[in-house]
Amino acid sequence: MKLGFCAQNYSEKPLQEVCKMVADKGYEAIEIATYDGNGQCDAGEMLQSGKAKEMRKMVESYGLFISALSNHADSLLIGGPWGEDTDGIYKGTKEEKIKFGTESLILTAQLANELEVPVVIGFTGVENFGRYFPFPHAKGWKACEDHFAEHFGPILDKFKEYGAKFAVEPHPNNLIYDVHTAKRAIEAVDNHPCLGINLDPANLTYLGLYVETFIDELADRIFHVHAKDAEIVAHNVGKGGILMQGEWGRLDRAFRFRIPGWGDVNWRKVITELAMTGYDYVLSYEHEDVTMSRADGVDKVVDYLKPLLIHAPYEGRNDKLFTI
Amino acid sequence: MKLGFCAQNYSEKPLQEVCKMVADKGYEAIEIATYDGNGQCDAGEMLQSGKAKEMRKMVESYGLFISALSNHADSLLIGGPWGEDTDGIYKGTKEEKIKFGTESLILTAQLANELEVPVVIGFTGVENFGRYFPFPHAKGWKACEDHFAEHFGPILDKFKEYGAKFAVEPHPNNLIYDVHTAKRAIEAVDNHPCLGINLDPANLTYLGLYVETFIDELADRIFHVHAKDAEIVAHNVGKGGILMQGEWGRLDRAFRFRIPGWGDVNWRKVITELAMTGYDYVLSYEHEDVTMSRADGVDKVVDYLKPLLIHAPYEGRNDKLFTI
Amino acid sequence: MKLGFCAQNYSEKPLQEVCKMVADKGYEAIEIATYDGNGQCDAGEMLQSGKAKEMRKMVESYGLFISALSNHADSLLIGGPWGEDTDGIYKGTKEEKIKFGTESLILTAQLANELEVPVVIGFTGVENFGRYFPFPHAKGWKACEDHFAEHFGPILDKFKEYGAKFAVEPHPNNLIYDVHTAKRAIEAVDNHPCLGINLDPANLTYLGLYVETFIDELADRIFHVHAKDAEIVAHNVGKGGILMQGEWGRLDRAFRFRIPGWGDVNWRKVITELAMTGYDYVLSYEHEDVTMSRADGVDKVVDYLKPLLIHAPYEGRNDKLFTI
Amino acid sequence: MKLGFCAQNYSEKPLQEVCKMVADKGYEAIEIATYDGNGQCDAGEMLQSGKAKEMRKMVESYGLFISALSNHADSLLIGGPWGEDTDGIYKGTKEEKIKFGTESLILTAQLANELEVPVVIGFTGVENFGRYFPFPHAKGWKACEDHFAEHFGPILDKFKEYGAKFAVEPHPNNLIYDVHTAKRAIEAVDNHPCLGINLDPANLTYLGLYVETFIDELADRIFHVHAKDAEIVAHNVGKGGILMQGEWGRLDRAFRFRIPGWGDVNWRKVITELAMTGYDYVLSYEHEDVTMSRADGVDKVVDYLKPLLIHAPYEGRNDKLFTI
Amino acid sequence: MKLGFCAQNYSEKPLQEVCKMVADKGYEAIEIATYDGNGQCDAGEMLQSGKAKEMRKMVESYGLFISALSNHADSLLIGGPWGEDTDGIYKGTKEEKIKFGTESLILTAQLANELEVPVVIGFTGVENFGRYFPFPHAKGWKACEDHFAEHFGPILDKFKEYGAKFAVEPHPNNLIYDVHTAKRAIEAVDNHPCLGINLDPANLTYLGLYVETFIDELADRIFHVHAKDAEIVAHNVGKGGILMQGEWGRLDRAFRFRIPGWGDVNWRKVITELAMTGYDYVLSYEHEDVTMSRADGVDKVVDYLKPLLIHAPYEGRNDKLFTI
Amino acid sequence: MKLGFCAQNYSEKPLQEVCKMVADKGYEAIEIATYDGNGQCDAGEMLQSGKAKEMRKMVESYGLFISALSNHADSLLIGGPWGEDTDGIYKGTKEEKIKFGTESLILTAQLANELEVPVVIGFTGVENFGRYFPFPHAKGWKACEDHFAEHFGPILDKFKEYGAKFAVEPHPNNLIYDVHTAKRAIEAVDNHPCLGINLDPANLTYLGLYVETFIDELADRIFHVHAKDAEIVAHNVGKGGILMQGEWGRLDRAFRFRIPGWGDVNWRKVITELAMTGYDYVLSYEHEDVTMSRADGVDKVVDYLKPLLIHAPYEGRNDKLFTI
Repeated sequence: MKLGFCAQNYSEKPLQEVCKMVADKGYEAIEIATYDGNGQCDAGEMLQSGKAKEMRKMVESYGLFISALSNHADSLLIGGPWGEDTDGIYKGTKEEKIKFGTESLILTAQLANELEVPVVIGFTGVENFGRYFPFPHAKGWKACEDHFAEHFGPILDKFKEYGAKFAVEPHPNNLIYDVHTAKRAIEAVDNHPCLGINLDPANLTYLGLYVETFIDELADRIFHVHAKDAEIVAHNVGKGGILMQGEWGRLDRAFRFRIPGWGDVNWRKVITELAMTGYDYVLSYEHEDVTMSRADGVDKVVDYLKPLLIHAPYEGRNDKLFTI
Repeated sequence: MKLGFCAQNYSEKPLQEVCKMVADKGYEAIEIATYDGNGQCDAGEMLQSGKAKEMRKMVESYGLFISALSNHADSLLIGGPWGEDTDGIYKGTKEEKIKFGTESLILTAQLANELEVPVVIGFTGVENFGRYFPFPHAKGWKACEDHFAEHFGPILDKFKEYGAKFAVEPHPNNLIYDVHTAKRAIEAVDNHPCLGINLDPANLTYLGLYVETFIDELADRIFHVHAKDAEIVAHNVGKGGILMQGEWGRLDRAFRFRIPGWGDVNWRKVITELAMTGYDYVLSYEHEDVTMSRADGVDKVVDYLKPLLIHAPYEGRNDKLFTI
Repeated sequence: MKLGFCAQNYSEKPLQEVCKMVADKGYEAIEIATYDGNGQCDAGEMLQSGKAKEMRKMVESYGLFISALSNHADSLLIGGPWGEDTDGIYKGTKEEKIKFGTESLILTAQLANELEVPVVIGFTGVENFGRYFPFPHAKGWKACEDHFAEHFGPILDKFKEYGAKFAVEPHPNNLIYDVHTAKRAIEAVDNHPCLGINLDPANLTYLGLYVETFIDELADRIFHVHAKDAEIVAHNVGKGGILMQGEWGRLDRAFRFRIPGWGDVNWRKVITELAMTGYDYVLSYEHEDVTMSRADGVDKVVDYLKPLLIHAPYEGRNDKLFTI
Repeated sequence: MKLGFCAQNYSEKPLQEVCKMVADKGYEAIEIATYDGNGQCDAGEMLQSGKAKEMRKMVESYGLFISALSNHADSLLIGGPWGEDTDGIYKGTKEEKIKFGTESLILTAQLANELEVPVVIGFTGVENFGRYFPFPHAKGWKACEDHFAEHFGPILDKFKEYGAKFAVEPHPNNLIYDVHTAKRAIEAVDNHPCLGINLDPANLTYLGLYVETFIDELADRIFHVHAKDAEIVAHNVGKGGILMQGEWGRLDRAFRFRIPGWGDVNWRKVITELAMTGYDYVLSYEHEDVTMSRADGVDKVVDYLKPLLIHAPYEGRNDKLFTI
Repeated sequence: MKLGFCAQNYSEKPLQEVCKMVADKGYEAIEIATYDGNGQCDAGEMLQSGKAKEMRKMVESYGLFISALSNHADSLLIGGPWGEDTDGIYKGTKEEKIKFGTESLILTAQLANELEVPVVIGFTGVENFGRYFPFPHAKGWKACEDHFAEHFGPILDKFKEYGAKFAVEPHPNNLIYDVHTAKRAIEAVDNHPCLGINLDPANLTYLGLYVETFIDELADRIFHVHAKDAEIVAHNVGKGGILMQGEWGRLDRAFRFRIPGWGDVNWRKVITELAMTGYDYVLSYEHEDVTMSRADGVDKVVDYLKPLLIHAPYEGRNDKLFTI
Repeated sequence: MKLGFCAQNYSEKPLQEVCKMVADKGYEAIEIATYDGNGQCDAGEMLQSGKAKEMRKMVESYGLFISALSNHADSLLIGGPWGEDTDGIYKGTKEEKIKFGTESLILTAQLANELEVPVVIGFTGVENFGRYFPFPHAKGWKACEDHFAEHFGPILDKFKEYGAKFAVEPHPNNLIYDVHTAKRAIEAVDNHPCLGINLDPANLTYLGLYVETFIDELADRIFHVHAKDAEIVAHNVGKGGILMQGEWGRLDRAFRFRIPGWGDVNWRKVITELAMTGYDYVLSYEHEDVTMSRADGVDKVVDYLKPLLIHAPYEGRNDKLFTI
């Protein structure tokens, strides 16, 4: 396993500056955003101008490699919601939004092909996340699943064409958010080989489910991993609960994202289960922790997480005491 | 405190039959549904025909009283969602749905006035419950709050006119679902005296918040209480998590509603806190427990819950050992 | 579901006396021991003399029915251990012990046929229970499984002939003691329809596994249920641990059997899961609680457990609020 | 075991009225206060006038017996504190207070003798309870122990003379408050046979210690038991902590006394351990629960606790399955 | 935040030696004791001789700064207790003790002024800590609060004059020991700007309260922080409980102070909450851990705690994914 | 305390190679296996050829010392089981196996004498571990204890002769596996000074007992410590339970051994208690963790555990604030 870094943590800085900084700190890989207007990588221009290979060389010149491209914002438009909820990403009718998201996601797959990056990360969206609850629309979630299959089937075929895989990040406002929904989505596209998961433990823990079980159940469908943690803020949860709305920075928030090691994720267990199921790729640190600066995070994460990465599976002992 | 019964548990039976059955079992009050098509009480007809008083007499003839009227289904239309999600309640445009919901709710208030029932229970709805999470629409929840204030302010004035109170049940797909949202909603209508809460502990526990804190914080805004429990199904939660979708009856569900005493609610603590904050009204049993028949519930709930009800506050001891 | 009683709780009393006592107290069924020398029911004599039907009539005359015959002691001889460990049951060579156990168990099946009792309860035994741990004999457990398949296959065919089912009670010193071993044993006899489980939650809880999961996984293979509880004695466990040896009655024991409601079993959850998987038979109370008299148990168990039994599955509600 | 009642719960009523009420409800014994000014029983007058026997007869006429006399208030004066802290009990110099407390306690022993009541309950007091913490006076607690031995040794000899036992109730502001202090106090008076404990679980649980261990360790030194519960109020403890000061009735209190079954005491475990160590006497219900009326308590306690009392020790089973 | 060191950990060594040692190890600040007879810093002499500035220069020559002066021992005399409990600090009448404590504390403030050190740490004392419990002196705690206001009001005015702040350390035998008492004390002196808290998490955790809540509630009243941890010794608490008396070093103690990271304090959460409320000063390590040498502590604390300190608040991300 | 390494972790490598590798990594001691066929150290040959001293010199040339010799496999034969369970160690009759084990263990003691190594580690064996449970052979465990006393008494006398101590590792299939069995075994050989414990926390935690209590109770009988951890695999335990059989590497195992810091052992508490009871010797890392390579373990263990070792007991502080 390797420790990676999400370039978008410093979206206001040029990509090269980020690469230099994190390579010096000991990070080994970089994840690059490609959604429209991300400020660091314009996928269309990269492809047209042929600058993609240059970017790859620049990254490698720092001893890093690109673990994944990520297109969270635009890909969400494909599954919705399509009203004012997503006007901040792209303004248009439902159909226009779907088209825009679809094209942006396919463009990212094309860039991945050009860069020889195996994984693209994104969301699926969902028309109304409240449909997880059966009232008032008992068949609502099924309708979202049907929409997903209809629209993502063709997209995944394009991914296959480009030799890339699509790793969906389980998340609120997303069709995939727990073990069941992840497995149903894969079934819904007939076990398409290009559909998998970008495991972000922070997005799972508040549900009470076991991240370890998620890993065991999805196993080789886990294409990429985010090193992000989350905290049920114990002293606030009595009032706020785990679905608390409001600004991330409010002092009384009952749920907040954290850097690895500062939340409720048991990283040793997560890393163990990843190793047991054969995952040997990147844990990419994303900073959404409102309690400390990104510079605090850059130092603390490499110190905490890098020594925990498992580098090889158990090769067995040969003595009488421990033979199976 | 008294033990009540939600007549809609047996919506397929005439109201009188339900009253007889539960009075015989030891229940002391009844809650009657008034939303359109509920099958037991047509509010419009009641008012026009003057049969309201008759119904009240019938109820009282069994030694019961009406603790509340409830209009969950129609009232939800006011806040949304308004697309296909609510077509099962009433089909129409957004504006038509709001109008229908508003009129149905006010009609219920009018019937409450006629019946001298102090409380009407309902929902507020919310356009997209997924907005509790700040991405992708960081200002989305605020927009729902504004919509609520605009539409419920006038409705609450009507309630005042009719001498009735509106008790919102905290719930998914509802603007009020935890302590913070309950308090913000009350503030949003300038502390309107007719807005309060129908406390249903089952709808709160899965959030991790303390129902006892909810009671202490809302205190005299709690107008009515549902005796409903909920179970985080410990042996399923590893896979499913607390927001698990799917049919209520599936064996692997990680969250399901239960009858009081069979879920995670600590009823002694809930009753204690209600007593400490001066609540001395009804706990109304609603059956949404898919693991047993309603007949099982009718017997088990009265056995379990009635002996726990607190009948009077502490009057003090006068001896030296315990003087404050 | 019905509440039953294990007659062997009072093995020193004639069966009829036990039936009278427990029927008066409210129990609804009786389980009768048939192993050699049990003092209440001599299977061989019953069959030869034709007194079986009389016994059945006697039981029914108290409004009871026979839920099961149980042959724990002799059946254990089939799987071992066969040295001095089982001399208290029957003294002989390994082969003689196996033969004795096999014949006694088949005799019980024959009596079940005569009495029209559908279930026989017993153990499988195991040569050395320490083999659950892979050192020093990594293949030792597998050898026990093979022995089981070889010897119980023919026995189960006999059961089929007699129209009876064999319900193994998971237990220490038994091949079946958790979910995995139960499922493997059933596979080992090619899913023989006559092999199932006598669920005794007390024998499972100390393992940390979820009794509810056991029920969901074994489901229709659960033929009978014992109402027995067990307590990890929290204040003793620091020294003793869950495998503590020594006399049941020692004050510092860290594990002891209890009557239902006085141990760590969550009976509401157990009963719920039994109901959800379609079990609608008997919970038979066995007294192994060293902290109180059997008379204490007889009263306390019927008071505690009978009101918790679920009598019918959920039949659904028909209103708009709760339609799936 | 029997269920008793502390007459001082209703100190404003004549003793006879209390006896009648609780006998009707199903209580089996009564505890009577004897400290100066208790309002129900003037020990001096009883002895002088010879009315003691009459009182006993009155009690017995309701089918009750006197389980103990209790003198909490006056006995506390013997160990202190002696300044204004105890002026509410008796105003005087340190020496005068000690003398008053000593005489009142011995008078109670004399009355116990007259009434043939085996146990007197009380406190020891302590000069400054803050001395449990070693700073600023590391040897302070030892000084209190010496004071105790000096003053209570002679008192206990008097008890012996009168055939009575002194049961100290572990409590804050008392030399005995946990296992260690209880055992040290007994050692300090050379294992005087008349010194023991009035176990009140409510006074122990907030310390985190195991009440069950307390019972096992003190065993036959437990002369009497109070049926009183206490609640660490989970939703308040974040702010208040377990030593929270302030009025008992404040809503945000983090610790409050409760009736049995409504607090953190595990009564089944307490009763089990009492039975295992041979206790077969009274559990006497004292009401200090500020959340409900005493009438609520009278009903709820008899319903909850009486069915849990263990009436006889395990007599063994004689069959092969369970022989030690 | 910076990591500091309490010089009194090595009170037997000259201050300079301590400064050299801890600066070499990586500590960044020093806290200096000033109570009478502390062995390292004689406040009166410092002021008279003008050596204060020299001491400051010496400290700074090692790259350290003085985070605070601490006067725990003498300041406790002001609030009591005044009998033999405090004779070890200063022998005299109540009035003499109060005078001595007052003068010593003001002298420390004067020295702080001379050294330009912003914070003085101390205790308030309390006449009898047992008064937290309402019996036997229900109004006793209030009397202590009145005493506090009367005596500390003028002292705090002196602090204001000297430009120093007084940080009370919550502790047993102290008027301030939890959230409620801290807030009441501040109110009692009319929110005097010079009264605040020296947060020592070790002194709070055993109460069950949330240190994080303490921080959020006191916020900018936290003037200084001690890096001290405490352990509820789980395997001893069954007998001892959290208020266990006796020598710190006894093996069976149920509560003992520890170095940071070896007790129950969650330092990441504590540091997070301090950062969120704007605290950006020193965590000063005090060694009261009886399980290991101070040299063990000096190494282990800097290794454990320094990498956890947060250096800057979150400055925000600018991309679409995380905008509030 | 020192950090050691079990050479048998790499039984396929020559001892010297192992010594070099671990000395470079920072380990300070080595434990060497001596059971028959271990591949690294042939005890008989060592003694006959006089190569023992050479081996010792080789070890010391890397700055290491030999903390213990270990003979787990052969010593187990003495107590059994003796059938096919131990044929993998040595094939023969019961008597032959006992003889072989006895001689191998005594030979190890002789080698320890030659090497001046104070401790030999091993097992005792037990005929049938299932006898911990009283059914079917209530007196079976006692028989194993008698066998132990008879056979190990003479062996321990030999140890005394050779100036060595025998440290039994608590373990399944061993007479010693918890506090009670450890103390009984010591009593059974009349407190022989040469019998003690090799504490391996991994073998204790799954029992629920407190390792800290084990340390406090056995104290100076703990002769050596293994740095091995174990994990109750929380997400698997629902099905498998803590006695789960099957291959160590199966993904769904509910119990597995781990390297220190990756399991359930609280190493800070274990190290604290060892320090408090005067243990100042080696923690020897054994790798049985199937989730990662031994190379992963070698790095991770030294990083995690070495900084936690306590080097000296608390020497006291001399100031007024902390005097006992």
